[in-house]
Amino acid sequence: MNPQSKHIYRFGGNVIEGNGSMREILGGKGAGLAEMSALGVPVPAGFTISTDVCRHYLEHGALPRGLNEELADAILWLEETSGRRFNDPANPLMVSVRSGAPISMPGMMDTILNVGLNRACVTGLAARSGSERFALDCLCRLMQMLGTVVLEVPKHDFDKAMKAARAAQGGDEGATLSVESLTSIAMAFEKIVEEATQQPFPSEPQLQVNMAVLAVFDSWQSDRARCYRALNDIPEEMGTAVTLQSMVFGNRGETSGTGVGFTRNPSTGEPTLFGEFLTNAQGEDIVAGVRTPWPISELAEIMPKLHEELREVVMRLERHYRDVQDFEFTFEEGKLFLLQTRSAKRSALAAVRNAVEMAEEGLISRREAIERVKPSSLNEILAPQLDLSAAPRELTRGLAASPGAAAGRIALSSEMAVKMVQDGSPVMLVTEETSAEDIHGMAVCSGFLTGRGGATSHAAVVARGMGKCCVTGAKEIAIDHASRTAVIGGESFKEGSWLTVDGSTGLVYAGRLPVSSAAGSNAYLNRLLALAAEESDCVVRANADTPEDARISRSLSAAGIGLCRTEHMFFSPERLVHMRSMILASNTEERTAALERLLPMQQADFEEIFRQMSPLAVTIRLLDPPLHEFLPSIEEIDAELLHARRDENWDAAIVWATMRERLKELTESNPMMGHRGCRLSLTYPEILEMQVRAVLQAACKVAGEGFDPKPEIMVPLVASEQEMRVLAAMIRKTAAELLEEVGQTPQYTLGTMIELPRAAVCAASIAKHVDFVSFGTNDLTQMTFGFSRDDARSYIDSYIEQGILAADPFLTIDQEGVGQLMQMAIKAVRAVNLRIKIGVCGEHAGDPESIRFFTRIGVDYVSCSPSRLPVAQLAVAQSNIANRSARLAQVSAALTNAQEEASQPIALAS
Amino acid sequence: MNPQSKHIYRFGGNVIEGNGSMREILGGKGAGLAEMSALGVPVPAGFTISTDVCRHYLEHGALPRGLNEELADAILWLEETSGRRFNDPANPLMVSVRSGAPISMPGMMDTILNVGLNRACVTGLAARSGSERFALDCLCRLMQMLGTVVLEVPKHDFDKAMKAARAAQGGDEGATLSVESLTSIAMAFEKIVEEATQQPFPSEPQLQVNMAVLAVFDSWQSDRARCYRALNDIPEEMGTAVTLQSMVFGNRGETSGTGVGFTRNPSTGEPTLFGEFLTNAQGEDIVAGVRTPWPISELAEIMPKLHEELREVVMRLERHYRDVQDFEFTFEEGKLFLLQTRSAKRSALAAVRNAVEMAEEGLISRREAIERVKPSSLNEILAPQLDLSAAPRELTRGLAASPGAAAGRIALSSEMAVKMVQDGSPVMLVTEETSAEDIHGMAVCSGFLTGRGGATSHAAVVARGMGKCCVTGAKEIAIDHASRTAVIGGESFKEGSWLTVDGSTGLVYAGRLPVSSAAGSNAYLNRLLALAAEESDCVVRANADTPEDARISRSLSAAGIGLCRTEHMFFSPERLVHMRSMILASNTEERTAALERLLPMQQADFEEIFRQMSPLAVTIRLLDPPLHEFLPSIEEIDAELLHARRDENWDAAIVWATMRERLKELTESNPMMGHRGCRLSLTYPEILEMQVRAVLQAACKVAGEGFDPKPEIMVPLVASEQEMRVLAAMIRKTAAELLEEVGQTPQYTLGTMIELPRAAVCAASIAKHVDFVSFGTNDLTQMTFGFSRDDARSYIDSYIEQGILAADPFLTIDQEGVGQLMQMAIKAVRAVNLRIKIGVCGEHAGDPESIRFFTRIGVDYVSCSPSRLPVAQLAVAQSNIANRSARLAQVSAALTNAQEEASQPIALAS
Repeated sequence: MNPQSKHIYRFGGNVIEGNGSMREILGGKGAGLAEMSALGVPVPAGFTISTDVCRHYLEHGALPRGLNEELADAILWLEETSGRRFNDPANPLMVSVRSGAPISMPGMMDTILNVGLNRACVTGLAARSGSERFALDCLCRLMQMLGTVVLEVPKHDFDKAMKAARAAQGGDEGATLSVESLTSIAMAFEKIVEEATQQPFPSEPQLQVNMAVLAVFDSWQSDRARCYRALNDIPEEMGTAVTLQSMVFGNRGETSGTGVGFTRNPSTGEPTLFGEFLTNAQGEDIVAGVRTPWPISELAEIMPKLHEELREVVMRLERHYRDVQDFEFTFEEGKLFLLQTRSAKRSALAAVRNAVEMAEEGLISRREAIERVKPSSLNEILAPQLDLSAAPRELTRGLAASPGAAAGRIALSSEMAVKMVQDGSPVMLVTEETSAEDIHGMAVCSGFLTGRGGATSHAAVVARGMGKCCVTGAKEIAIDHASRTAVIGGESFKEGSWLTVDGSTGLVYAGRLPVSSAAGSNAYLNRLLALAAEESDCVVRANADTPEDARISRSLSAAGIGLCRTEHMFFSPERLVHMRSMILASNTEERTAALERLLPMQQADFEEIFRQMSPLAVTIRLLDPPLHEFLPSIEEIDAELLHARRDENWDAAIVWATMRERLKELTESNPMMGHRGCRLSLTYPEILEMQVRAVLQAACKVAGEGFDPKPEIMVPLVASEQEMRVLAAMIRKTAAELLEEVGQTPQYTLGTMIELPRAAVCAASIAKHVDFVSFGTNDLTQMTFGFSRDDARSYIDSYIEQGILAADPFLTIDQEGVGQLMQMAIKAVRAVNLRIKIGVCGEHAGDPESIRFFTRIGVDYVSCSPSRLPVAQLAVAQSNIANRSARLAQVSAALTNAQEEASQPIALAS
Repeated sequence: MNPQSKHIYRFGGNVIEGNGSMREILGGKGAGLAEMSALGVPVPAGFTISTDVCRHYLEHGALPRGLNEELADAILWLEETSGRRFNDPANPLMVSVRSGAPISMPGMMDTILNVGLNRACVTGLAARSGSERFALDCLCRLMQMLGTVVLEVPKHDFDKAMKAARAAQGGDEGATLSVESLTSIAMAFEKIVEEATQQPFPSEPQLQVNMAVLAVFDSWQSDRARCYRALNDIPEEMGTAVTLQSMVFGNRGETSGTGVGFTRNPSTGEPTLFGEFLTNAQGEDIVAGVRTPWPISELAEIMPKLHEELREVVMRLERHYRDVQDFEFTFEEGKLFLLQTRSAKRSALAAVRNAVEMAEEGLISRREAIERVKPSSLNEILAPQLDLSAAPRELTRGLAASPGAAAGRIALSSEMAVKMVQDGSPVMLVTEETSAEDIHGMAVCSGFLTGRGGATSHAAVVARGMGKCCVTGAKEIAIDHASRTAVIGGESFKEGSWLTVDGSTGLVYAGRLPVSSAAGSNAYLNRLLALAAEESDCVVRANADTPEDARISRSLSAAGIGLCRTEHMFFSPERLVHMRSMILASNTEERTAALERLLPMQQADFEEIFRQMSPLAVTIRLLDPPLHEFLPSIEEIDAELLHARRDENWDAAIVWATMRERLKELTESNPMMGHRGCRLSLTYPEILEMQVRAVLQAACKVAGEGFDPKPEIMVPLVASEQEMRVLAAMIRKTAAELLEEVGQTPQYTLGTMIELPRAAVCAASIAKHVDFVSFGTNDLTQMTFGFSRDDARSYIDSYIEQGILAADPFLTIDQEGVGQLMQMAIKAVRAVNLRIKIGVCGEHAGDPESIRFFTRIGVDYVSCSPSRLPVAQLAVAQSNIANRSARLAQVSAALTNAQEEASQPIALAS
């Protein structure tokens, strides 16, 4: 036969005419069956009519010449291979007919089963299956499927007849239909078809096949299919294949059966066959749960040879597809058939274990192991999970701001949280929003729930930093401080009531739900991350503000601290008092005196952080927030003032009145763009001097103890080269003074954040003065979009709904805008300062998609919350691998070009 | 004589050896005198020793060979030319010795006068001048100058001797010294010099000359001179020239005299000789004001020939230098000498008239006329000026936020201002700061004074828009609303007291000062602006929000309205009530109903604006500020709520309680980056629809009246292409609906503001959807720097002091950062949309330096407050001229290169 005119490809049995690479011709389904067949996997025999036929049909409105003969040959072969024949009442051949395009395409024809069956054969089928009910049911299903899908009879008519039969039988919806009922249904269906089509129901198998095949081709042109192709850019001329496969039955007695399984445990990843089966049953019986299936291990006992064959076959599939397989099988009178196989869906835990073990087994490469696990899925392993088995009452839903779950007693303020935690029970902070002032209270809570703010609101950022669960922006929350109650989703809760919050879903539940503790440090995860580290050019640091954060980061293999926010050190009560007297100081002397009291405290923190991290780098950011954040709220001040006056405590009254005045002076219309960051250092150089001294003295001290501290001093919110020049000089001067005083000055490096659009635009000139720059992508996103992250929730949600934003730009970096600024800046910076180190320390540094972008544009490190370290470490490794592949592809394309050029005859050579 | 060795260049009399182009050799002074001399202007004869001599002296420590002989020749020539001789007691020659570098250089030697005089000649000088006192005074001055400047005797010693003589004479500081006193002073000075130098005072003229010349050369190396050169990048090796000039005397009787003058009146610009003179007097006599000088017109009567000669000479100078001259002259025994001439300083009024008239006379080109006037100086003409002759008491100083001056009675709130103005007297609003809510009150005030905010704060922007004076950020202001008093600069003022504010200087005065009304529409200015318009590629539009603004803009030749802010239309009380019910609406229907009540009001405003501007374009910006700006303050709401409850007016209480809740919902941490601009249109499409309808219906209406409206709908605060795509569709849909309803839809264009960094970065994709873009440089500056313009005063001032910022970026565009973003955006926009119109409508559009930048990067129009139109129109013309010259220079350089290349012999030609 001329291969040009070959239209049908067989599989199963003794002939295999296709393989897995022939998707274009055989469609996905046909190619897959050919592939399995070629692997020697027992599949029910069948054949695929190629997409060429479909294209010919679409073009000419007729099937190509010779197809009918080829089809007849193929059916003949199928009858021989299966040992059954069309129209053979004793042992009838039945086939399934399925569509299958090269690209998977919902919207096309549904599968038609049992094609080939008719009244004449039902008896034989009943005899062989031992069930008249089953045989009748097969016939009814065929009539309904052929009727609706091929003959376009309204489904409603069939449903009505079915209902009537049920009613006649007794009316119980759930009951099995009796043989009598099925018989009457079959008769009714025949009549329905005849009335609708003015033709008798096509009982001839060959006719059924022809009609089904044309119906598949016609379905390519259905509205649903066209619409799907338009939406997914699938070419119209691609066409679909049709696969016919002989049907096998698991319900032909005790040596028949059916089951589903996984080559490895999909929950735990354990590398043993996992699944369940039933004997004398069809696939639906397992799904329907009418009989309780047995674990697949039982099969080894009742049919050891079959079990061994199955094990061997599916492991062959796993090896072939190089991934854990999720398979369906049937055995008919002791003969095994695989019906389907595909890569298995699995839990994160299983994914990690599979990847690591498959690499160790040599099944996949180490790089593939890294690529196999979705970074964000690690949150499942790392965060505590809620036990929802009791179907608890959902109160409301907010933004899933920090993963994990926790139950606790409601506290409506940080102060109350601190008091309540002393009773020993966990506490859940429920507030409108949080501010830097709440840090101390937040430290003792199990989780946070806020009524305002988004994924990068203060509460969210702090929660992720602390590794606690948090739900923000839960709009259906109202807090009444007077009555100490919170109304959540319309229900009122007294302070102290139990509440459960799921930071992975954003859901809030009444009462105290059981929480499974996190898998925590997982041996397989550690092995995976060790592989990942070997593949990472870009390193992952942690954002850590305290010695405890540093310890956790170190235990999670952080490559250093990329952001240590010094302001958080000032919020404990014994420090806040000095911070406030610094702010209230009326002149430089008073301010310096207050700062001198803070210096030893801050130095002690730095010392411990340096000890924890030695010899890794620690990036310390100078004071960033506006000073008013360190003062109490106006309400609190007014209350204290009233109190002091009532008590005639005039000294206190003066202090509070001064505080009030200073707060009003410091209050800003737009604090995010206010007097903060390096602007503080330039207006109050004493603060910078104190902080630089604390850093460098701490480094000297621990160096003396034999540690190897690597301080990196980072200046926030720089907008211009001029600022950076002045600040660098101030820092160097302070370091030089220290050298003079104590005769020792540690090595330190100097850097700045790029978090203002102007800093990105002018990055080249700023970079001349520093050793490193770190993109503060939170602020950069705010300023570039003009989105205040505390307020933007209201319209960002609406933007995402309307498709104006693809994602929350505070969660996933906006590559087009913010990212373009970053790319420009990096290019400019590298051009003027070859040895500069470039990092990212915003919230995006923990987001896999953002990390992919960052590594592509060439950052040297990312720095994220300790709780996001594993996610980031994995994402970085994956990105680096992908980038290397892309570069390799580029190089090899360039080489090919060069070779082609080299092989051109050289013209005009002298 | 070998020209190589020529060191001395003569001028005046019968020999002129240099000219104005020889600054390198003769210094500025020597070249200028040579030039005047060459023009036939009578100058006292003299000569200049070249800078070569100085360089030789600096290098070798000695004067070049032959100089002494050349100098002796020159002195001989000078004696002959002047008819006087050194050491001639009857008629002694006296010369002035001056330093003069090619670049004017303070820090070098002072002039020494009367060189050549000595005891022996005093008698002769006394006889010829008719004044023994004058002759002695000349000698004393010479002794002191030579002593201090050349011989380095401490000046203090001379002062002491002078004081002693005065004391001996009677002690009156102001009295003229007697001949006896002067004689004793001369003797004392001789002794001082002899004691200090251990040498007798050098009485020999030749020796005096030699010493003075060397002193000039030595002064080139003085610390002051070196420091000045280092600061101003003047090369060390340049060297200075020395000019010796014979002295002439205006005090040799009634046919001698002296005077100063201008070729045109420096205050009014009137083109007649202006100045004053005295006969028988020296230059100092005019300056000292001992005798009252006569106007120069008198000279025509007493010495008509001399007057005519003077007039002819100075007009020749004006023609030669092509500018109004400020000159000094002396006549000695009927002979005229010009001592100095330079371009005259003049008032803005005079500058404008001079420029226009000189162009009309053909003295300068029309382009030069445009270039001659500093745009910012026009504020002097346009704004009312304060009469400070009574030396009023300054209370404090703030930021000069809007030019002009006004006196008014203090109102501490907008409401009070509205009440007070009904009494008929002008009102000055004194507040902490203003907000959109105050607009109605601000409209009735004469000026504003605020305690907070910068040059682009709300008060400043509104003031400039209204053309009223304003001082902002006056820190020494405290307002006590309880006692209705304001403490300004430590002094307490009751509401209703008079206060005067100068918005051009930032000064605040107690009481009511006289204010001169503005020159206003000035005929010469109009002629200048007409010339400017002819030279402008880039046009100037006005920011106008009301029909009245539109009328004023039209009268000032605005080329259209570049920014009509629709929100200002909502603040009058009868509209605010509907605006508030729109905001309080709990669903779309209620909101739409309130909007429908606003529509006809807004439409009526647009109609009148279109009538005023027809056929010029009017750019209407859709609603921009966050909605909470339209609600009362929380304090006001709380007061009303309390009131309503006290009165048991429960309906009102519910309204106010709802208002309170809504205000809290709408309140944002950073409103500048909040729910505003196009974000409002996307969350409340009804608002956009109402506004688009109002614009287009208004256009249809006035088109029906025969006008030619050109509406341009502008969307604020766009960040992304996606927003723009959705908004453009919404606007087009509304327009299409209108077409369907009324069968008529006017032409309109569609545009957006680029005021977010992201919009600048993604400008190309945004530009695909619009007909025009307009840079909102205020917000763009805010976001790019991360400077909140309401709060940034505190550190911007400090930054300017520290040299971190060269200028307030809210006043003058930051070219390096914000400007670079604009350039990027313009390039990208022009690449995708060739026909797009690009404008600027921020405050910077009225700043000449910023305008220079904008025209260079290729904007099509700028749009500024009506009061700044003339400044902007002139600045635009100047910038366009400068840009054309720069391009011409480029082209001609390219042509030269091309010619040179073309003239190269072609090598390897086949």
